[in-house]
Amino acid sequence: MNKRAHNFSAGPCTLPLECLEEAQKEFVNYHDTGMSLIEMSHRGKHFVEVANDAMRLCMEVFEVPDEFSVLFLQGGAIMQFSMVPMNLLVPGKKAGYVHSGTWAKGAITDAKAYGDVYIAWNGEQCGYTRMPDSGEIEIQDDTRYLHITTNETIEGIRYPNWPDVGVPLVGDMSSEYMARPVPWEKFDLIYGGAQKNLGPSGLCVVFVRKSILEHTNSHMGRYLRYDVHESKTSMFNTPPVFSIYMLGKVLKWMKKEGGLKVMESRAAEKAGLLYDTIDQSGGYYSCPVDVACRSHMNVVFRLPSEELEQQFLAEAGQNDLMHLKGHRSVGGCRASIYNALPRASVEALCSFMSDFLSRNG
Amino acid sequence: MNKRAHNFSAGPCTLPLECLEEAQKEFVNYHDTGMSLIEMSHRGKHFVEVANDAMRLCMEVFEVPDEFSVLFLQGGAIMQFSMVPMNLLVPGKKAGYVHSGTWAKGAITDAKAYGDVYIAWNGEQCGYTRMPDSGEIEIQDDTRYLHITTNETIEGIRYPNWPDVGVPLVGDMSSEYMARPVPWEKFDLIYGGAQKNLGPSGLCVVFVRKSILEHTNSHMGRYLRYDVHESKTSMFNTPPVFSIYMLGKVLKWMKKEGGLKVMESRAAEKAGLLYDTIDQSGGYYSCPVDVACRSHMNVVFRLPSEELEQQFLAEAGQNDLMHLKGHRSVGGCRASIYNALPRASVEALCSFMSDFLSRNG
Repeated sequence: MNKRAHNFSAGPCTLPLECLEEAQKEFVNYHDTGMSLIEMSHRGKHFVEVANDAMRLCMEVFEVPDEFSVLFLQGGAIMQFSMVPMNLLVPGKKAGYVHSGTWAKGAITDAKAYGDVYIAWNGEQCGYTRMPDSGEIEIQDDTRYLHITTNETIEGIRYPNWPDVGVPLVGDMSSEYMARPVPWEKFDLIYGGAQKNLGPSGLCVVFVRKSILEHTNSHMGRYLRYDVHESKTSMFNTPPVFSIYMLGKVLKWMKKEGGLKVMESRAAEKAGLLYDTIDQSGGYYSCPVDVACRSHMNVVFRLPSEELEQQFLAEAGQNDLMHLKGHRSVGGCRASIYNALPRASVEALCSFMSDFLSRNG
Repeated sequence: MNKRAHNFSAGPCTLPLECLEEAQKEFVNYHDTGMSLIEMSHRGKHFVEVANDAMRLCMEVFEVPDEFSVLFLQGGAIMQFSMVPMNLLVPGKKAGYVHSGTWAKGAITDAKAYGDVYIAWNGEQCGYTRMPDSGEIEIQDDTRYLHITTNETIEGIRYPNWPDVGVPLVGDMSSEYMARPVPWEKFDLIYGGAQKNLGPSGLCVVFVRKSILEHTNSHMGRYLRYDVHESKTSMFNTPPVFSIYMLGKVLKWMKKEGGLKVMESRAAEKAGLLYDTIDQSGGYYSCPVDVACRSHMNVVFRLPSEELEQQFLAEAGQNDLMHLKGHRSVGGCRASIYNALPRASVEALCSFMSDFLSRNG
């Protein structure tokens, strides 16, 4: 039995133990070929089968309609901050961006290099503690798409309801990928780094509506074009073999566990346990986020002082409750509770929080 | 003892067995942390140490002077086909490209989207069977850089002598990375995919002359800017953790084996064995490449007919001599004999080739 820490990392983050153990077993000599999978040609039958399975499972587990293709790209979600406007923002069109927090800001910064980009709603005034209602989002004429960050990993907020704004949505879903159902009809494109709910880092999974690929920009390097990757089934160049392989294993696990609905309800339960612990602490633990917009993936909270936060984090570490420090840009504490994090880890954290309060409250 | 095939894949390709076995051992529970390395924050101490070690070893093993920085990027060498001209090709300048084969053609195709690009030498007439001498390369006024593909993986050719043309070189060195010493003073930038000599796919290693970063273009998304990655020590965003980890192990192995000079001499010896077998076959096996330009990494050869080639490949596979099929665009056979391929595998192939000839000649 492998020792396991309670791993609350915001990403890369905990993966299902059985996926890791399976990968370990077949790591050096894959299916008795005398080679590791990472040593094989990506165009050979073994990896092609792995990649095809992973693609099929992406579509199945995430309940993606046939109007979309899945792409396996590199460069993380941040590469998509560039690729989205490069490809979609055709001359004469604008792009609206919801500025909901740290990751939205990154997307806006990069998009500005590629066209006419405007802020359709700005969360700065509220300190990024909530997402906008649809009625607050101001869409300008000639808007090609509205970009949203469906879950802000650092601020710990998510959309309780999907925006309904009359233009196609593009979503950075990195930190709640495959943790809730998506209204696909609203979206032209969804992207996210794999290193939260889906597998190791080094892989960005993109779902793109096929019909838009005829109208994307093409005067750019081929790696940067969605249509090129789509036409080559993400085998335009050597893909990140190991990350795709692990993605396939994680997706099989999700499917076996019951799929998207089960992931969604487990996330709600785990988040509920933590928010209850916070809310029932008499203000000792506090979450700055608007209750309706609380993330089910990244639970941020503060203690009464930074000194207590330091003590909390140190003692948590001694109890194998790892990676609970808030992002360096905002401080405080953050528990990332992605799909693969067992409920028992959340229970252990809640128990530790209650204990810490009783000793230091 | 793990079963091992003789793996002549052009990439992803064979890696040192001891690196694979070490990675397997620590895969699920890294250094008794209760986590896999791929589950840890990339900003935590364990991965930061892994990444710093890999960077330091890149500089040390490849004998890179301090004037350069090493960058760990994603998107493969093909992403660099875009990033190089995007960053380096400033207004008023041109870029010369040596069209030496399949990969050079790709670099040229992508570069054309970003500025004034010309062919400084064209290998089409000779069927890409050799590299140019310096005197054949025509440099135009206002040339910012000359791009070369130091080893053409598909055509099996390399530069016996480095071009001396009076402008900075940019080199795609993917398929002979860290297999021969580089005259760094000639280069502004060298790049290559890791999945040949350096590790698994999903990682592109770039060496950039620091002094040029003050003069690169900046009006683009941040992931596409060398200066951004350099200023963040390749931690601008989540890096491909597992690929960097394996790179570190492979570099340690290279250093232990004796470093660059040993890799170079072993490659010459292994290539020598194969070319001798071809040359001494009385024309049964033939290599189309100009003798002086024969690659030490990718040995291409033909048999008297396509039927015999099919038979050769099938029988080779039955003898655990894997991935010997030439690239689908050119046919024939190809043995990729990268750093980690044991000499014994080349000897086994030579022996099989002699045997096949005696039975079918």
